[in-house]
Amino acid sequence: MSRTNHQYRLAARPVGLPRPTDWEYVEEPVGEPGEGELLIEVIHLSLDPAMRGWMNEGKSYIRPVEIGEVMRAGGVGRVIASHNPRFAVGDYVSGTLGVQEYCLSDGRDLTKVDPALAPLPVYLGVLGMTGMTAYFGLLDIGQPEPGQTVVVSGAAGAVGSVVGQIAKIKGCRVIGIAGGERKCRLVVEEFGFDACIDYKSQDVRKALREVAPEGVDVYFDNVGGDVLDAVLTRLARGARIVICGAISQYNATDQVKGPANYMSLLVNRASMTGMVVFDYADRYPEATAELAQWLSEGKLRSLEDVVDGGVRAFPDALLRLFKGDNTGKLVLKVADEVKAADE
Amino acid sequence: MSRTNHQYRLAARPVGLPRPTDWEYVEEPVGEPGEGELLIEVIHLSLDPAMRGWMNEGKSYIRPVEIGEVMRAGGVGRVIASHNPRFAVGDYVSGTLGVQEYCLSDGRDLTKVDPALAPLPVYLGVLGMTGMTAYFGLLDIGQPEPGQTVVVSGAAGAVGSVVGQIAKIKGCRVIGIAGGERKCRLVVEEFGFDACIDYKSQDVRKALREVAPEGVDVYFDNVGGDVLDAVLTRLARGARIVICGAISQYNATDQVKGPANYMSLLVNRASMTGMVVFDYADRYPEATAELAQWLSEGKLRSLEDVVDGGVRAFPDALLRLFKGDNTGKLVLKVADEVKAADE
Repeated sequence: MSRTNHQYRLAARPVGLPRPTDWEYVEEPVGEPGEGELLIEVIHLSLDPAMRGWMNEGKSYIRPVEIGEVMRAGGVGRVIASHNPRFAVGDYVSGTLGVQEYCLSDGRDLTKVDPALAPLPVYLGVLGMTGMTAYFGLLDIGQPEPGQTVVVSGAAGAVGSVVGQIAKIKGCRVIGIAGGERKCRLVVEEFGFDACIDYKSQDVRKALREVAPEGVDVYFDNVGGDVLDAVLTRLARGARIVICGAISQYNATDQVKGPANYMSLLVNRASMTGMVVFDYADRYPEATAELAQWLSEGKLRSLEDVVDGGVRAFPDALLRLFKGDNTGKLVLKVADEVKAADE
Repeated sequence: MSRTNHQYRLAARPVGLPRPTDWEYVEEPVGEPGEGELLIEVIHLSLDPAMRGWMNEGKSYIRPVEIGEVMRAGGVGRVIASHNPRFAVGDYVSGTLGVQEYCLSDGRDLTKVDPALAPLPVYLGVLGMTGMTAYFGLLDIGQPEPGQTVVVSGAAGAVGSVVGQIAKIKGCRVIGIAGGERKCRLVVEEFGFDACIDYKSQDVRKALREVAPEGVDVYFDNVGGDVLDAVLTRLARGARIVICGAISQYNATDQVKGPANYMSLLVNRASMTGMVVFDYADRYPEATAELAQWLSEGKLRSLEDVVDGGVRAFPDALLRLFKGDNTGKLVLKVADEVKAADE
């Protein structure tokens, strides 16, 4: 049976926001899996701010996507052919599948997932890299203690919404920062944060003085820029800043805006530490178990924002992240789970 | 016996570099020590970059010097009258004596020092706050391991020169950053660093690529600004940055320049941590003992840059720090030790 694969390859390194001309939409026949390989039909793709960084040239925590290469993306899919003893047709898997409809894999970076335990998109969200990032970034680097004040930027987003919920579970007072009234309401009402500051209509520094008068013990930063600079002015002594991302700066065409108030680290004996989730790979099982437990107990809510557009819709869907249009985990639906199961 | 005290009081909060009009030179009679008090003749004053920060209004790690208040300064002096049972006439003491010739004190923040064990200025340098800052900043925050690469800015300065020497004692490869050929030579030849980069004539980033090809494990930052930004591009994985000061920014009249390359903390899973030496007060004795031991064994060299101008010379002497004129610990000589002893 001959199948056709559609995929996005990187055509050019973007300057600023990725433009349509930075992508090449390619149609090609799907190859047959060789010895030890398997073929996956992609069902959902994870859209992440980090993808913008992968499109840049130069050394980073992961090699850049090369020009002409299929754009890297995490995803979940269903095995439709296999010459790999670890995987059988009908298995559901998550891994780095790429922005495409079909993925040939040697199976090495794949994990089996069970759609009976959680809907597939959750394996890209709370039970995927998103959840791992929130879990280890907050608990390992942030080290919040009960009663302390935790501030999270990008609070309505994939990682931020999970960070805040975990901090609540750990007995902290949790303040979100998000853009717009709708998101702020979601952060408080759906994710249970104690308060949320709308950075678009409020002065973050002043607002923090009101909602966190004792200062900020842990700041989990997803956005960088002015918000980071504002939070730096309100640190409690010994504060820990977790640098998880800087979405406000990823598309900067001028030089990145460094945190001018960084000397607050000295005044407050505080630290600012970067984290990359892949470093915790051998501890994913412990985090997954605890997160799944919290999900099942209803202590943790997973919110996915699923764009139903197929691979074709990828470039526009990705831009939603940088426009701040999404709430929760942004996922691109590539194929129907049911259709896949019926095939 | 009636004595006259000369002192500098803060007249205005400086904008940029302190100007003569920011100081008031005051002459007044020396008071008599009351119950529990003692009178100290000031012999040497410590000149420190941090003093610039104390002149600013607003919350910091220590309260600001108020307008009209005697400028805060560490110093060493000799007790010339005492109604305090802990101190006798002829004792030498170090503490916060202020920019003046005579200091009335209740004795609470004073430490006795022994001029037979080390020259008095050393108690402001290696055996004073300078040494404590270097010791705890490097060892507690930087946590260098033998064989690792330690980079120190302000390497010819008071704290930097001690940091590098301690790092050498601990078996590290040590790179200094300093301004000008003369300082760089001093750093290598007198303080024993493995190399020194002249930020005035060299591209720090390129130079680091050559002298620290494996990357920087510990960066002890005294200067901030462009040098911090350059070092951020050359971090090794898991690097620790100690934020001790930012002398390049203390007199900034525009906004402070934040480290634009701070996302290198994420890429390299690195941390940037502020330190304030006063937090280690209860561990000063252990540091002093070890530093004194290294001094006596000739493993550690204390270099003081003594300006012999009396209190009157304070404003100009202070500016030498910000012009980068000093090497080692900048000290203002206020009175003659011998003269004091003869009195």
